[in-house]
Amino acid sequence: MELKSYLKTQKTNIDGFLRDYLSPLDIPPRLKEAMQYSLGAGGKRLRPVLVLAAHDAVGGKSRAAVAVGAAIEMIHTYSLIHDDLPAMDNDDFRRGKPTCHRVFGEAMAILAGDGLLTQAFEILSDPSHMEEVPAEVCVRVVGEVARGAGSTGMVGGQVLDMISEGSDIDAAALQNMHLRKTGALIRASVAAGALLGGADDEGLEALRGYGTKIGLAFQVADDILDVTRTEEELGKSTSDVARGKRTYPSLYGLEGARAMAETLVTEALKSLKGFDGGATPLREIARYIITRAH
Amino acid sequence: MELKSYLKTQKTNIDGFLRDYLSPLDIPPRLKEAMQYSLGAGGKRLRPVLVLAAHDAVGGKSRAAVAVGAAIEMIHTYSLIHDDLPAMDNDDFRRGKPTCHRVFGEAMAILAGDGLLTQAFEILSDPSHMEEVPAEVCVRVVGEVARGAGSTGMVGGQVLDMISEGSDIDAAALQNMHLRKTGALIRASVAAGALLGGADDEGLEALRGYGTKIGLAFQVADDILDVTRTEEELGKSTSDVARGKRTYPSLYGLEGARAMAETLVTEALKSLKGFDGGATPLREIARYIITRAH
Repeated sequence: MELKSYLKTQKTNIDGFLRDYLSPLDIPPRLKEAMQYSLGAGGKRLRPVLVLAAHDAVGGKSRAAVAVGAAIEMIHTYSLIHDDLPAMDNDDFRRGKPTCHRVFGEAMAILAGDGLLTQAFEILSDPSHMEEVPAEVCVRVVGEVARGAGSTGMVGGQVLDMISEGSDIDAAALQNMHLRKTGALIRASVAAGALLGGADDEGLEALRGYGTKIGLAFQVADDILDVTRTEEELGKSTSDVARGKRTYPSLYGLEGARAMAETLVTEALKSLKGFDGGATPLREIARYIITRAH
Repeated sequence: MELKSYLKTQKTNIDGFLRDYLSPLDIPPRLKEAMQYSLGAGGKRLRPVLVLAAHDAVGGKSRAAVAVGAAIEMIHTYSLIHDDLPAMDNDDFRRGKPTCHRVFGEAMAILAGDGLLTQAFEILSDPSHMEEVPAEVCVRVVGEVARGAGSTGMVGGQVLDMISEGSDIDAAALQNMHLRKTGALIRASVAAGALLGGADDEGLEALRGYGTKIGLAFQVADDILDVTRTEEELGKSTSDVARGKRTYPSLYGLEGARAMAETLVTEALKSLKGFDGGATPLREIARYIITRAH
């Protein structure tokens, strides 16, 4: 299977949805512009691709998978906008472009984030997008996404990250932080795709396990990239190391972190052992994460 | 009917839910504290009371009404936390207490707001709270609340408010701003209660009409209070007038604004003409809004 062309096709579908979705809505123009600016600022669209790949893994046929993926990407985008704010990480650049608050001002960036987060739940409950999805499944997807994004998940992880900055946290605390900060929404993406695709309880649990492992692997890879790549390559202005944050390489060394990423990916692949060829994209995505780390 | 005792009972139920709900959750302690601080900072609990009263108006018997009301109060509370931020209204006091960011810092206040907004959707999709609610109704409630809170609703209204500050907007623009900023979530509260209670389409439309009118009436009354009460009585440090915002009294004069509030309340009561004694709390709430303005 050609992962590159799979990713490209899925990314095109997601980007198309994200580009067109807000246009017809009666949103104050400057707010819409800010939301679209950040949605359009690129990125790998990892979370929506995971929704689609998990949906494929269980043999799903739902036409709502792109919409659900896009909703989760809106949540991811809101989290980046708020993370970049002066009161938070105070970043001027994101993905090589000026951050939302640098272009639209701080107040508008806060509101654009709030708007994107809320928009996600509008999509997940909108009959025109969730048309053929049973209401029970819609409710479960809303729950998965809300828990992944909320104060026990991503928002909680952001707080742990903020509190730990400059302090000497141990491996367990670092893992707990990442399980929430990036892991929770990644796991929710996989679970949402599985639910949409009609996964049974066993399949759902296996895919949740996969999501947890690649979520961590992804973070370890990110930490490695943060050490090995230059600012220009990363497209952001301040590395986590420069910020005095604990990272996997700082805790385990570069080679130790690479070994850890490999172990996590192996475990993620093990979670998929009960799945057939439909899970090939999920397997390829897991392997791709290691490539990034090397 | 004794509105005071009705309001008191309902407020007690809501406050109890809000006080207990977060405690058992695995939220980082400082974040939980910030969320609880703002949830516990008082307020009339108007929106949850409207959920309960609309639910009563259609003869509802759902045990989920308190949870839904509490979820909407979390959204209202998040909006206050973000509104008060230095980048927004920069308020040091709210309801007579230091604002969230004054106590917990700006970053934590942003995240506490994000957490509360997301928590609302966790509640609305949580089977332990929505147990007996048909999934179709849950999805519709999520949709109502998300649209009311989002970029075409409350967040959009906040942007219009921000953009209009200090500028000479006309009556139509002022109304559009308020229909979104405060009106949309108030209408969503009434609609959510009606849906939970099993309203038919006609009843739902009538109650939406009621919600729109009292939402505006409430804002007009707020504007009047802003002129006629002192800072100490209001419990906040900067009046909208001092901030150079257009208000109903500045546009229509104090007496004109009072007449407007009365007309809106009369229209709200007209929307309820097809309802029996179950709508008494909704009628009393509408009348109470005028009392506030005098």
